[in-house]
Amino acid sequence: MATLLKGKPVVDHMAIDLRNRIEALKSRGVEPTLALVRMGERPDDLSYERTAKKRAASLGLSTKPYVLDDLAPQAAVQATLQSINYDKTVHGCLMFRPLPSFLDEKALCNMLSPEKDIDGISLASLASVFTDSSDGFPPCTAQACVEILDFYRIPLVGKHVVVIGRSLVVGKPVSMMLLRRNASVTICHSRTENLPELCRTADIVICAVGRAHAFGKEYFRAGQTVLDVGINFDSRGTLCGDVNFDEVEPVVDAITPVPGGIGTVTTSVTMAHVVDAAEKMAGR
Amino acid sequence: MATLLKGKPVVDHMAIDLRNRIEALKSRGVEPTLALVRMGERPDDLSYERTAKKRAASLGLSTKPYVLDDLAPQAAVQATLQSINYDKTVHGCLMFRPLPSFLDEKALCNMLSPEKDIDGISLASLASVFTDSSDGFPPCTAQACVEILDFYRIPLVGKHVVVIGRSLVVGKPVSMMLLRRNASVTICHSRTENLPELCRTADIVICAVGRAHAFGKEYFRAGQTVLDVGINFDSRGTLCGDVNFDEVEPVVDAITPVPGGIGTVTTSVTMAHVVDAAEKMAGR
Repeated sequence: MATLLKGKPVVDHMAIDLRNRIEALKSRGVEPTLALVRMGERPDDLSYERTAKKRAASLGLSTKPYVLDDLAPQAAVQATLQSINYDKTVHGCLMFRPLPSFLDEKALCNMLSPEKDIDGISLASLASVFTDSSDGFPPCTAQACVEILDFYRIPLVGKHVVVIGRSLVVGKPVSMMLLRRNASVTICHSRTENLPELCRTADIVICAVGRAHAFGKEYFRAGQTVLDVGINFDSRGTLCGDVNFDEVEPVVDAITPVPGGIGTVTTSVTMAHVVDAAEKMAGR
Repeated sequence: MATLLKGKPVVDHMAIDLRNRIEALKSRGVEPTLALVRMGERPDDLSYERTAKKRAASLGLSTKPYVLDDLAPQAAVQATLQSINYDKTVHGCLMFRPLPSFLDEKALCNMLSPEKDIDGISLASLASVFTDSSDGFPPCTAQACVEILDFYRIPLVGKHVVVIGRSLVVGKPVSMMLLRRNASVTICHSRTENLPELCRTADIVICAVGRAHAFGKEYFRAGQTVLDVGINFDSRGTLCGDVNFDEVEPVVDAITPVPGGIGTVTTSVTMAHVVDAAEKMAGR
């Protein structure tokens, strides 16, 4: 039986600190506010938006929705982001992605001012993750992995972490963040040879490929900590992670569940970044 | 007996292509030119500058020296870089570092316009390495590693590379570049546990810590390719790498010598970047 690294206790722990800081901001006349930019009505985006609004409300944090038509042109999204950049009542911006394919998503991500880019989507934010500067915010999911490891006091210094997946949303940024914590980090992907063997050499394995049940027990051994970043649906339409949980949980030392693991913490990280941004803007 | 991965054949191979391209630029009235920015008279910088000038001259590429006093203030270096940014006769800029400690080196690096930042020192260049964009130039030493691997046709796809050292000049950028080539990459450092064991699991080991003879035969096994990025002096004042060459060479399959390995190729990469920059500026 592995220890379940549930997100809820992490979220509760973060909430205590965040509520205090939000109170302090309000007493100084600052209403910390998160802009939510959505195009169209994709069910994924709507569900994520509902979760974000609920979490924000529970902490006393305001949200400001910006809803564009799913056929809105580049200039419309551009104008929206620009208005957010200039709006002193908005402290952070979460833009639901992927954007429709007819838009230049990269150019739009780079328009967001780094101080409000609380999900680390702009080049400036990613550069700060790569160069260990504290100027920008890292992507929330990557930071959620670090928050879970920290909360459950999983040792990192000198330890070997295998990260499967090399996206700019999770794989690469979480690798840089764990390197900064003095872990040794291996980045793997679909072309990696002997992946099961490589995974078994790790102290910590982070699965972030987005494929239901992609990793069975042959990838793991006793003593390991497993973070499952995947949010997928299996053939029966049930929410599941990248790891075959039923097979792997009896083998390893500790594992995050899906749902109720990393995803749960990600939303709290988003809120924490908005509070950080508001504090910076107000002068701590 | 390991195959010696000498830099000279790589340099000769690159020179053929570069001479042709420089000729083509000149026939269009473009004189590809590298600015060399030096503060004071540090022997390291002077030696590097001599090598760069010689290599440039041998290819038909012009250099333009900018020499500042070793006590020049931030504003002086700033003005120099700004003048280089605006100067249409200069295509690339190499600034010898480290700068004196009383200067804000990071701010100065970021002033250089990305199109002329042929050694990948600005945040914009590093961001492009991290995000796999082709907008900027990667650091020359990191690219020299890739050039050597390519020239000697060392397989990369799916292979496991262990990189020792996490600097922004070599370790991190070369990791991103090899990841892009579909290698699996482990980044290690001074805090890594069981480093010798970890190194022995790799197909390719890149040593970039800058400590004379730091890696003996216990770090290696038969079948491996070793790139030694270190440029150090041993206790007798002899130039040497990070690897204990005499001990390791009989064990592994292939290894770069020091001197005559990576360092030799780095200067050619610098020149190649200037030619790239000049071509981009002229419109290919």
